[in-house]
Amino acid sequence: MSTTPPRAPKKTPPDSARRSERSRRAIYDAALALVGEIGYPRTTIEGIAARAGVGKQTIYRWWGSKAQVLMEAFIDLNEQNQRAAAADHPDVPLDPVGLPDSGDLEADLKAVLRATVDELLDPRFDAPARALAAEGVASREFAREFVAKLLMPGLDLYAARLRAAQDAGQVRADVDPETARDLFSGPLAQRWLQETGPLDHAYADRIVEYALYGITPRP
Amino acid sequence: MSTTPPRAPKKTPPDSARRSERSRRAIYDAALALVGEIGYPRTTIEGIAARAGVGKQTIYRWWGSKAQVLMEAFIDLNEQNQRAAAADHPDVPLDPVGLPDSGDLEADLKAVLRATVDELLDPRFDAPARALAAEGVASREFAREFVAKLLMPGLDLYAARLRAAQDAGQVRADVDPETARDLFSGPLAQRWLQETGPLDHAYADRIVEYALYGITPRP
Repeated sequence: MSTTPPRAPKKTPPDSARRSERSRRAIYDAALALVGEIGYPRTTIEGIAARAGVGKQTIYRWWGSKAQVLMEAFIDLNEQNQRAAAADHPDVPLDPVGLPDSGDLEADLKAVLRATVDELLDPRFDAPARALAAEGVASREFAREFVAKLLMPGLDLYAARLRAAQDAGQVRADVDPETARDLFSGPLAQRWLQETGPLDHAYADRIVEYALYGITPRP
Repeated sequence: MSTTPPRAPKKTPPDSARRSERSRRAIYDAALALVGEIGYPRTTIEGIAARAGVGKQTIYRWWGSKAQVLMEAFIDLNEQNQRAAAADHPDVPLDPVGLPDSGDLEADLKAVLRATVDELLDPRFDAPARALAAEGVASREFAREFVAKLLMPGLDLYAARLRAAQDAGQVRADVDPETARDLFSGPLAQRWLQETGPLDHAYADRIVEYALYGITPRP
Protein backbone atom coordinates (compact mmCIF):
# COMPACT_ATOMS: atom_id res chain seq x y z
CA MET A 1 0.00 0.00 0.00
CA SER A 2 1.10 3.54 -0.66
CA THR A 3 1.36 6.17 2.02
CA THR A 4 -0.72 9.28 1.57
CA PRO A 5 1.01 12.60 1.00
CA PRO A 6 1.30 14.97 3.93
CA ARG A 7 -1.70 17.32 3.88
CA ALA A 8 -0.75 19.22 7.01
CA PRO A 9 2.45 17.63 8.31
CA LYS A 10 3.21 18.49 11.89
CA LYS A 11 6.83 17.44 12.24
CA THR A 12 8.24 19.23 9.18
CA PRO A 13 9.11 22.91 9.21
CA PRO A 14 6.70 25.33 7.45
CA ASP A 15 8.84 25.76 4.30
CA SER A 16 9.02 22.03 3.70
CA ALA A 17 5.28 21.66 4.32
CA ARG A 18 4.56 24.40 1.82
CA ARG A 19 6.82 22.76 -0.75
CA SER A 20 5.11 19.39 -0.17
CA GLU A 21 1.69 20.96 -0.55
CA ARG A 22 2.79 22.73 -3.74
CA SER A 23 4.19 19.48 -5.18
CA ARG A 24 1.08 17.54 -4.23
CA ARG A 25 -1.17 20.08 -5.95
CA ALA A 26 1.07 20.15 -9.07
CA ILE A 27 1.00 16.35 -9.25
CA TYR A 28 -2.81 16.26 -8.94
CA ASP A 29 -3.21 18.92 -11.64
CA ALA A 30 -0.79 17.12 -13.94
CA ALA A 31 -2.49 13.73 -13.48
CA LEU A 32 -5.97 15.13 -14.17
CA ALA A 33 -4.77 17.17 -17.15
CA LEU A 34 -2.88 14.27 -18.76
CA VAL A 35 -5.77 11.82 -18.39
CA GLY A 36 -8.06 14.39 -20.00
CA GLU A 37 -5.64 15.15 -22.84
CA ILE A 38 -4.02 11.83 -23.81
CA GLY A 39 -6.21 9.29 -22.01
CA TYR A 40 -5.54 7.06 -19.04
CA PRO A 41 -3.72 4.21 -20.83
CA ARG A 42 -1.03 6.59 -22.18
CA THR A 43 -0.65 8.49 -18.90
CA THR A 44 2.46 7.39 -16.97
CA ILE A 45 4.06 8.26 -13.64
CA GLU A 46 7.00 9.66 -15.64
CA GLY A 47 4.66 11.89 -17.67
CA ILE A 48 2.91 13.14 -14.54
CA ALA A 49 6.25 13.90 -12.87
CA ALA A 50 7.57 15.78 -15.92
CA ARG A 51 4.44 17.89 -16.24
CA ALA A 52 4.32 18.60 -12.50
CA GLY A 53 8.00 19.55 -12.46
CA VAL A 54 8.90 17.01 -9.78
CA GLY A 55 11.13 13.95 -9.77
CA LYS A 56 9.29 10.68 -10.27
CA GLN A 57 10.69 9.48 -6.94
CA THR A 58 8.58 12.18 -5.29
CA ILE A 59 5.51 10.49 -6.73
CA TYR A 60 6.63 6.97 -5.84
CA ARG A 61 7.32 8.11 -2.27
CA TRP A 62 3.66 9.01 -1.82
CA TRP A 63 1.75 6.68 -4.15
CA GLY A 64 2.09 3.10 -5.38
CA SER A 65 0.69 3.48 -8.91
CA LYS A 66 -0.75 5.95 -11.39
CA ALA A 67 -4.21 4.69 -10.42
CA GLN A 68 -3.52 5.73 -6.81
CA VAL A 69 -2.33 9.19 -7.89
CA LEU A 70 -5.42 9.67 -10.03
CA MET A 71 -7.75 8.51 -7.25
CA GLU A 72 -6.30 11.01 -4.74
CA ALA A 73 -6.38 13.76 -7.39
CA PHE A 74 -10.00 12.96 -8.13
CA ILE A 75 -11.01 12.94 -4.44
CA ASP A 76 -9.31 16.33 -4.08
CA LEU A 77 -11.16 17.67 -7.15
CA ASN A 78 -14.46 16.51 -5.66
CA GLU A 79 -13.69 18.17 -2.33
CA GLN A 80 -12.82 21.44 -4.06
CA ASN A 81 -16.03 21.24 -6.04
CA GLN A 82 -18.16 20.58 -2.97
CA ARG A 83 -16.63 23.54 -1.16
CA ALA A 84 -17.30 25.75 -4.21
CA ALA A 85 -20.92 24.52 -4.45
CA ALA A 86 -21.50 25.15 -0.73
CA ALA A 87 -20.03 28.67 -1.08
CA ASP A 88 -22.42 29.34 -4.00
CA HIS A 89 -25.48 28.50 -1.87
CA PRO A 90 -24.81 29.80 1.64
CA ASP A 91 -28.60 30.01 2.21
CA VAL A 92 -29.26 26.23 2.05
CA PRO A 93 -28.50 24.51 5.37
CA LEU A 94 -26.42 21.33 5.13
CA ASP A 95 -27.12 18.34 7.33
CA PRO A 96 -24.18 17.30 9.55
CA VAL A 97 -22.70 15.07 6.84
CA GLY A 98 -23.13 17.35 3.87
CA LEU A 99 -26.44 16.91 2.00
CA PRO A 100 -28.88 19.82 1.94
CA ASP A 101 -31.69 19.47 4.49
CA SER A 102 -34.28 22.21 3.87
CA GLY A 103 -37.05 19.96 5.24
CA ASP A 104 -38.34 19.37 1.68
CA LEU A 105 -36.99 15.90 0.82
CA GLU A 106 -38.07 15.99 -2.84
CA ALA A 107 -36.48 19.41 -3.46
CA ASP A 108 -33.28 18.45 -1.65
CA LEU A 109 -32.85 15.17 -3.53
CA LYS A 110 -33.57 16.84 -6.87
CA ALA A 111 -30.91 19.48 -6.11
CA VAL A 112 -28.38 16.75 -5.25
CA LEU A 113 -29.17 14.60 -8.28
CA ARG A 114 -29.10 17.60 -10.63
CA ALA A 115 -25.70 18.59 -9.23
CA THR A 116 -24.52 15.00 -9.71
CA VAL A 117 -25.66 15.08 -13.34
CA ASP A 118 -23.79 18.36 -13.86
CA GLU A 119 -20.66 16.83 -12.39
CA LEU A 120 -20.92 13.65 -14.47
CA LEU A 121 -21.29 15.74 -17.64
CA ASP A 122 -18.38 18.03 -16.75
CA PRO A 123 -15.42 17.09 -19.02
CA ARG A 124 -12.97 17.73 -16.14
CA PHE A 125 -14.65 14.88 -14.23
CA ASP A 126 -15.53 12.55 -17.05
CA ALA A 127 -12.10 11.29 -18.16
CA PRO A 128 -10.61 10.65 -14.69
CA ALA A 129 -13.86 9.21 -13.37
CA ARG A 130 -14.12 6.73 -16.27
CA ALA A 131 -10.46 5.78 -15.87
CA LEU A 132 -10.98 5.07 -12.17
CA ALA A 133 -14.16 3.11 -12.89
CA ALA A 134 -12.33 0.95 -15.46
CA GLU A 135 -9.45 0.34 -13.07
CA GLY A 136 -11.99 -0.57 -10.39
CA VAL A 137 -13.76 -3.06 -12.64
CA ALA A 138 -10.46 -4.64 -13.70
CA SER A 139 -8.91 -4.96 -10.23
CA ARG A 140 -10.87 -6.11 -7.18
CA GLU A 141 -8.23 -4.74 -4.81
CA PHE A 142 -8.33 -1.28 -6.38
CA ALA A 143 -12.12 -1.47 -6.54
CA ARG A 144 -12.35 -1.94 -2.79
CA GLU A 145 -10.19 1.12 -2.13
CA PHE A 146 -12.03 3.14 -4.80
CA VAL A 147 -15.43 2.22 -3.40
CA ALA A 148 -14.39 2.84 0.21
CA LYS A 149 -12.76 6.21 -0.46
CA LEU A 150 -14.88 7.62 -3.26
CA LEU A 151 -18.24 5.94 -3.62
CA MET A 152 -19.30 4.94 -0.10
CA PRO A 153 -18.98 8.42 1.43
CA GLY A 154 -21.43 9.68 -1.20
CA LEU A 155 -23.80 6.75 -0.68
CA ASP A 156 -23.63 7.26 3.09
CA LEU A 157 -24.78 10.85 2.59
CA TYR A 158 -27.93 9.61 0.86
CA ALA A 159 -28.61 7.06 3.58
CA ALA A 160 -28.13 9.68 6.32
CA ARG A 161 -30.48 12.11 4.54
CA LEU A 162 -33.10 9.35 4.18
CA ARG A 163 -32.73 8.46 7.86
CA ALA A 164 -33.34 12.12 8.80
CA ALA A 165 -36.44 12.03 6.56
CA GLN A 166 -37.59 8.89 8.38
CA ASP A 167 -37.26 10.71 11.70
CA ALA A 168 -39.38 13.51 10.21
CA GLY A 169 -42.03 11.00 9.08
CA GLN A 170 -41.35 11.72 5.38
CA VAL A 171 -40.01 8.24 4.60
CA ARG A 172 -41.72 5.05 5.81
CA ALA A 173 -40.16 3.62 8.95
CA ASP A 174 -39.86 0.13 7.39
CA VAL A 175 -37.68 1.38 4.50
CA ASP A 176 -34.02 0.30 4.58
CA PRO A 177 -31.96 3.46 3.85
CA GLU A 178 -29.01 1.40 2.56
CA THR A 179 -31.27 -0.09 -0.11
CA ALA A 180 -33.31 3.04 -0.87
CA ARG A 181 -30.19 5.15 -1.55
CA ASP A 182 -29.42 2.85 -4.50
CA LEU A 183 -32.62 3.99 -6.25
CA PHE A 184 -30.97 7.41 -6.60
CA SER A 185 -27.34 6.54 -7.24
CA GLY A 186 -27.74 3.35 -9.31
CA PRO A 187 -29.73 4.74 -12.25
CA LEU A 188 -27.45 7.78 -12.65
CA ALA A 189 -24.33 5.63 -12.43
CA GLN A 190 -25.64 3.25 -15.07
CA ARG A 191 -26.72 6.00 -17.50
CA TRP A 192 -23.39 7.72 -17.15
CA LEU A 193 -21.14 4.64 -17.34
CA GLN A 194 -23.04 2.76 -20.02
CA GLU A 195 -24.77 5.58 -21.87
CA THR A 196 -28.13 3.82 -21.93
CA GLY A 197 -30.10 7.05 -22.42
CA PRO A 198 -30.11 10.83 -21.96
CA LEU A 199 -28.64 12.09 -18.69
CA ASP A 200 -30.08 15.50 -17.80
CA HIS A 201 -31.97 17.39 -15.09
CA ALA A 202 -35.35 16.11 -16.29
CA TYR A 203 -34.08 12.54 -15.85
CA ALA A 204 -32.78 13.35 -12.35
CA ASP A 205 -36.17 14.83 -11.39
CA ARG A 206 -38.11 11.81 -12.66
CA ILE A 207 -35.87 9.38 -10.79
CA VAL A 208 -36.48 11.27 -7.54
CA GLU A 209 -40.26 11.40 -8.11
CA TYR A 210 -40.54 7.70 -8.99
CA ALA A 211 -38.39 6.62 -6.04
CA LEU A 212 -40.29 8.78 -3.55
CA TYR A 213 -43.84 8.11 -4.73
CA GLY A 214 -43.56 4.85 -6.72
CA ILE A 215 -44.57 4.18 -10.31
CA THR A 216 -47.91 2.55 -9.50
CA PRO A 217 -51.10 4.60 -9.06
CA ARG A 218 -51.46 6.08 -5.56
CA PRO A 219 -54.81 5.34 -3.94
CA MET B 1 -15.38 -4.48 -37.49
CA SER B 2 -15.38 -8.25 -37.33
CA THR B 3 -17.83 -10.43 -39.12
CA THR B 4 -19.97 -12.73 -37.04
CA PRO B 5 -19.51 -16.47 -37.33
CA PRO B 6 -21.97 -18.41 -39.47
CA ARG B 7 -24.75 -19.63 -37.18
CA ALA B 8 -26.77 -21.32 -39.91
CA PRO B 9 -24.87 -20.72 -43.13
CA LYS B 10 -26.96 -21.30 -46.24
CA LYS B 11 -24.34 -21.47 -48.94
CA THR B 12 -22.02 -24.00 -47.31
CA PRO B 13 -22.68 -27.72 -47.41
CA PRO B 14 -24.01 -29.41 -44.23
CA ASP B 15 -20.67 -30.92 -43.18
CA SER B 16 -18.91 -27.57 -43.31
CA ALA B 17 -21.76 -25.92 -41.39
CA ARG B 18 -21.52 -28.56 -38.68
CA ARG B 19 -17.77 -28.07 -38.48
CA SER B 20 -18.22 -24.29 -38.21
CA GLU B 21 -20.81 -24.70 -35.50
CA ARG B 22 -18.56 -27.10 -33.61
CA SER B 23 -15.60 -24.69 -33.86
CA ARG B 24 -17.71 -21.74 -32.79
CA ARG B 25 -18.93 -23.58 -29.69
CA ALA B 26 -15.41 -24.79 -28.82
CA ILE B 27 -14.09 -21.22 -29.13
CA TYR B 28 -16.85 -19.85 -26.88
CA ASP B 29 -16.24 -22.54 -24.26
CA ALA B 30 -12.48 -21.95 -24.37
CA ALA B 31 -12.84 -18.16 -24.03
CA LEU B 32 -15.22 -18.40 -21.06
CA ALA B 33 -13.13 -21.09 -19.35
CA LEU B 34 -9.84 -19.20 -19.75
CA VAL B 35 -11.24 -15.90 -18.47
CA GLY B 36 -12.60 -17.75 -15.44
CA GLU B 37 -9.35 -19.62 -14.81
CA ILE B 38 -6.51 -17.19 -15.56
CA GLY B 39 -8.36 -13.86 -15.82
CA TYR B 40 -9.10 -11.61 -18.75
CA PRO B 41 -5.75 -9.77 -18.98
CA ARG B 42 -3.82 -13.05 -19.42
CA THR B 43 -6.32 -14.55 -21.86
CA THR B 44 -5.10 -14.30 -25.48
CA ILE B 45 -6.47 -15.21 -28.91
CA GLU B 46 -3.62 -17.76 -29.14
CA GLY B 47 -4.64 -19.31 -25.81
CA ILE B 48 -8.28 -19.52 -26.85
CA ALA B 49 -7.33 -21.13 -30.19
CA ALA B 50 -5.06 -23.69 -28.52
CA ARG B 51 -7.68 -24.67 -25.97
CA ALA B 52 -10.43 -24.84 -28.58
CA GLY B 53 -8.26 -26.93 -30.89
CA VAL B 54 -8.56 -24.52 -33.83
CA GLY B 55 -6.04 -22.38 -35.68
CA LYS B 56 -5.91 -18.79 -34.53
CA GLN B 57 -6.72 -17.70 -38.09
CA THR B 58 -10.13 -19.31 -37.58
CA ILE B 59 -10.73 -16.92 -34.71
CA TYR B 60 -9.38 -13.89 -36.57
CA ARG B 61 -11.60 -14.73 -39.54
CA TRP B 62 -14.70 -14.30 -37.37
CA TRP B 63 -13.71 -11.79 -34.69
CA GLY B 64 -11.51 -8.70 -34.45
CA SER B 65 -10.29 -9.04 -30.86
CA LYS B 66 -10.46 -11.21 -27.75
CA ALA B 67 -13.03 -8.76 -26.37
CA GLN B 68 -15.26 -9.49 -29.39
CA VAL B 69 -14.90 -13.25 -28.90
CA LEU B 70 -15.76 -12.95 -25.23
CA MET B 71 -18.77 -10.74 -25.93
CA GLU B 72 -20.24 -13.24 -28.42
CA ALA B 73 -19.48 -16.11 -26.05
CA PHE B 74 -21.21 -14.26 -23.24
CA ILE B 75 -24.28 -13.45 -25.34
CA ASP B 76 -24.48 -17.12 -26.28
CA LEU B 77 -24.18 -18.15 -22.60
CA ASN B 78 -27.02 -15.78 -21.71
CA GLU B 79 -29.21 -17.16 -24.48
CA GLN B 80 -28.58 -20.73 -23.33
CA ASN B 81 -29.42 -19.72 -19.77
CA GLN B 82 -32.65 -18.02 -20.76
CA ARG B 83 -33.75 -21.06 -22.75
CA ALA B 84 -32.96 -23.29 -19.75
CA ALA B 85 -34.87 -21.00 -17.36
CA ALA B 86 -37.89 -20.92 -19.67
CA ALA B 87 -37.83 -24.72 -19.93
CA ASP B 88 -37.77 -24.92 -16.10
CA HIS B 89 -40.96 -22.86 -15.79
CA PRO B 90 -43.21 -23.84 -18.67
CA ASP B 91 -46.24 -22.71 -16.62
CA VAL B 92 -45.34 -18.98 -16.52
CA PRO B 93 -46.39 -17.23 -19.72
CA LEU B 94 -43.76 -14.98 -21.30
CA ASP B 95 -44.72 -11.68 -22.87
CA PRO B 96 -43.85 -11.40 -26.58
CA VAL B 97 -40.31 -10.15 -25.82
CA GLY B 98 -39.42 -12.52 -23.01
CA LEU B 99 -40.30 -11.25 -19.51
CA PRO B 100 -42.90 -13.15 -17.50
CA ASP B 101 -46.36 -11.58 -17.61
CA SER B 102 -48.61 -13.34 -15.12
CA GLY B 103 -50.66 -10.17 -14.63
CA ASP B 104 -49.03 -9.64 -11.20
CA LEU B 105 -46.40 -6.96 -11.87
CA GLU B 106 -44.78 -7.17 -8.43
CA ALA B 107 -44.42 -10.96 -8.56
CA ASP B 108 -43.09 -10.89 -12.14
CA LEU B 109 -40.50 -8.20 -11.43
CA LYS B 110 -39.36 -9.95 -8.26
CA ALA B 111 -38.91 -13.20 -10.23
CA VAL B 112 -36.86 -11.38 -12.88
CA LEU B 113 -34.69 -9.49 -10.38
CA ARG B 114 -34.11 -12.62 -8.28
CA ALA B 115 -33.04 -14.47 -11.42
CA THR B 116 -30.73 -11.58 -12.30
CA VAL B 117 -29.16 -11.74 -8.83
CA ASP B 118 -28.63 -15.49 -9.24
CA GLU B 119 -26.95 -14.90 -12.59
CA LEU B 120 -24.72 -12.10 -11.28
CA LEU B 121 -23.59 -14.35 -8.40
CA ASP B 122 -22.93 -17.34 -10.68
CA PRO B 123 -19.14 -17.73 -11.04
CA ARG B 124 -19.56 -18.76 -14.69
CA PHE B 125 -21.02 -15.32 -15.40
CA ASP B 126 -19.00 -13.21 -13.01
CA ALA B 127 -15.53 -13.30 -14.58
CA PRO B 128 -16.57 -12.76 -18.22
CA ALA B 129 -19.18 -10.16 -17.26
CA ARG B 130 -16.64 -8.13 -15.26
CA ALA B 131 -14.10 -8.39 -18.07
CA LEU B 132 -16.64 -7.08 -20.57
CA ALA B 133 -17.68 -4.30 -18.21
CA ALA B 134 -14.05 -3.21 -17.76
CA GLU B 135 -13.46 -3.29 -21.51
CA GLY B 136 -16.62 -1.25 -21.97
CA VAL B 137 -15.55 1.37 -19.44
CA ALA B 138 -12.09 1.62 -21.01
CA SER B 139 -13.18 1.86 -24.65
CA ARG B 140 -16.11 3.97 -25.79
CA GLU B 141 -16.32 2.12 -29.10
CA PHE B 142 -16.51 -1.28 -27.44
CA ALA B 143 -18.92 0.13 -24.87
CA ARG B 144 -21.38 1.13 -27.59
CA GLU B 145 -21.33 -2.36 -29.08
CA PHE B 146 -21.52 -3.99 -25.63
CA VAL B 147 -24.44 -1.82 -24.56
CA ALA B 148 -26.30 -2.28 -27.88
CA LYS B 149 -25.85 -6.05 -28.01
CA LEU B 150 -25.95 -7.03 -24.36
CA LEU B 151 -27.45 -4.40 -22.12
CA MET B 152 -30.14 -2.65 -24.16
CA PRO B 153 -32.06 -5.83 -25.08
CA GLY B 154 -32.43 -6.52 -21.35
CA LEU B 155 -33.43 -2.94 -20.56
CA ASP B 156 -35.93 -2.99 -23.42
CA LEU B 157 -37.58 -6.04 -21.83
CA TYR B 158 -38.18 -4.07 -18.64
CA ALA B 159 -39.58 -1.09 -20.56
CA ALA B 160 -41.90 -3.36 -22.57
CA ARG B 161 -43.15 -5.09 -19.39
CA LEU B 162 -43.79 -1.69 -17.77
CA ARG B 163 -45.64 -0.51 -20.89
CA ALA B 164 -47.87 -3.61 -20.69
CA ALA B 165 -48.50 -2.78 -17.02
CA GLN B 166 -49.45 0.77 -18.04
CA ASP B 167 -51.97 -0.63 -20.51
CA ALA B 168 -53.39 -2.74 -17.66
CA GLY B 169 -53.61 0.35 -15.38
CA GLN B 170 -50.98 -1.03 -12.99
CA VAL B 171 -48.40 1.68 -13.71
CA ARG B 172 -49.30 5.38 -13.91
CA ALA B 173 -49.83 6.62 -17.46
CA ASP B 174 -47.44 9.57 -16.95
CA VAL B 175 -44.49 7.31 -16.04
CA ASP B 176 -41.69 7.12 -18.64
CA PRO B 177 -40.86 3.39 -19.03
CA GLU B 178 -37.34 4.19 -20.26
CA THR B 179 -36.64 5.98 -16.98
CA ALA B 180 -38.55 3.64 -14.68
CA ARG B 181 -36.68 0.54 -15.94
CA ASP B 182 -33.47 2.07 -14.53
CA LEU B 183 -34.88 1.82 -10.99
CA PHE B 184 -34.67 -1.96 -11.37
CA SER B 185 -31.48 -2.42 -13.39
CA GLY B 186 -29.35 0.43 -11.98
CA PRO B 187 -29.24 -0.59 -8.31
CA LEU B 188 -28.43 -4.24 -9.11
CA ALA B 189 -25.73 -3.23 -11.59
CA GLN B 190 -24.12 -0.91 -9.08
CA ARG B 191 -24.18 -3.43 -6.20
CA TRP B 192 -22.70 -6.09 -8.41
CA LEU B 193 -20.01 -3.99 -10.13
CA GLN B 194 -18.94 -1.93 -7.14
CA GLU B 195 -19.85 -4.25 -4.26
CA THR B 196 -21.52 -1.49 -2.24
CA GLY B 197 -23.61 -3.91 -0.18
CA PRO B 198 -25.15 -7.40 -0.03
CA LEU B 199 -26.69 -8.65 -3.29
CA ASP B 200 -29.39 -11.25 -2.58
CA HIS B 201 -33.07 -12.05 -3.11
CA ALA B 202 -34.17 -9.88 -0.16
CA TYR B 203 -32.42 -6.91 -1.79
CA ALA B 204 -34.09 -7.65 -5.13
CA ASP B 205 -37.51 -7.80 -3.45
CA ARG B 206 -37.01 -4.49 -1.62
CA ILE B 207 -35.90 -2.71 -4.80
CA VAL B 208 -39.07 -3.88 -6.58
CA GLU B 209 -41.30 -2.82 -3.66
CA TYR B 210 -39.70 0.62 -3.29
CA ALA B 211 -39.82 1.32 -7.04
CA LEU B 212 -43.44 0.23 -7.38
CA TYR B 213 -44.88 1.87 -4.26
CA GLY B 214 -42.32 4.57 -3.37
CA ILE B 215 -40.44 5.06 -0.13
CA THR B 216 -42.71 7.81 1.24
CA PRO B 217 -45.84 6.98 3.25
CA ARG B 218 -48.85 6.18 1.06
CA PRO B 219 -51.98 8.17 1.94
